[in-house]
Amino acid sequence: MPSAKTNAPHKPDAETCKALGNILDRVGDKWTVMVVGILSDGPMRFNALQRAVAGVSHRMLTLTLRGLERDGLVKRTAFATVPPRVDYELTKLGHSLKSPLEILAEWVQTNRAAVERARKAFDR
Amino acid sequence: MPSAKTNAPHKPDAETCKALGNILDRVGDKWTVMVVGILSDGPMRFNALQRAVAGVSHRMLTLTLRGLERDGLVKRTAFATVPPRVDYELTKLGHSLKSPLEILAEWVQTNRAAVERARKAFDR
Repeated sequence: MPSAKTNAPHKPDAETCKALGNILDRVGDKWTVMVVGILSDGPMRFNALQRAVAGVSHRMLTLTLRGLERDGLVKRTAFATVPPRVDYELTKLGHSLKSPLEILAEWVQTNRAAVERARKAFDR
Repeated sequence: MPSAKTNAPHKPDAETCKALGNILDRVGDKWTVMVVGILSDGPMRFNALQRAVAGVSHRMLTLTLRGLERDGLVKRTAFATVPPRVDYELTKLGHSLKSPLEILAEWVQTNRAAVERARKAFDR
């Protein structure tokens, strides 16, 4: 494990930059932000999640959930019922990501109008 | 301006979901996180930025800076010197994004080892 030294969190040395960037891209992804937000209320089935995450395709939700499961942020539980039932829920690690993502999502909601005004001005 | 009602920040209604998701994907992008972090110390020229953002290509840094400028987060100033000099600095809006991104980057640094352990276990 490399020592973090006194680098600012956003200025890691070159060696760790790639690894951090890879995780950042995953957790900063918009579908991840939405899925983590929705699952923070409790476990949910795939179909209910798809209804809750506006605009997500079946394929994109599948990929997002698999990525979250691989990263240890979401736990997938299959029940041997008829029809089969699969629940998704946040792990402890996933719950710890909730607050940072909420803060980011709040920034977006607060500043959405300003960003959209800037884009219109830039595109003129 | 649509009213925010009482929706949680990560659960906007379907109408605004796409617009928010679009901005989220931009500000959660790893290069954006790194560039905003580095520019938070003050204005910087392109070449200095490229040295500071480990692993970024000329093209990707150009695209990232243009996106940040379009979003109103970064201001580009060209000086009529020989050779020409171009500075990039955070706008007031860009500065307001610094803290949310630092919190996210801190989560990544703190939990990097846990995520990498989860990935290894999943891939086995």
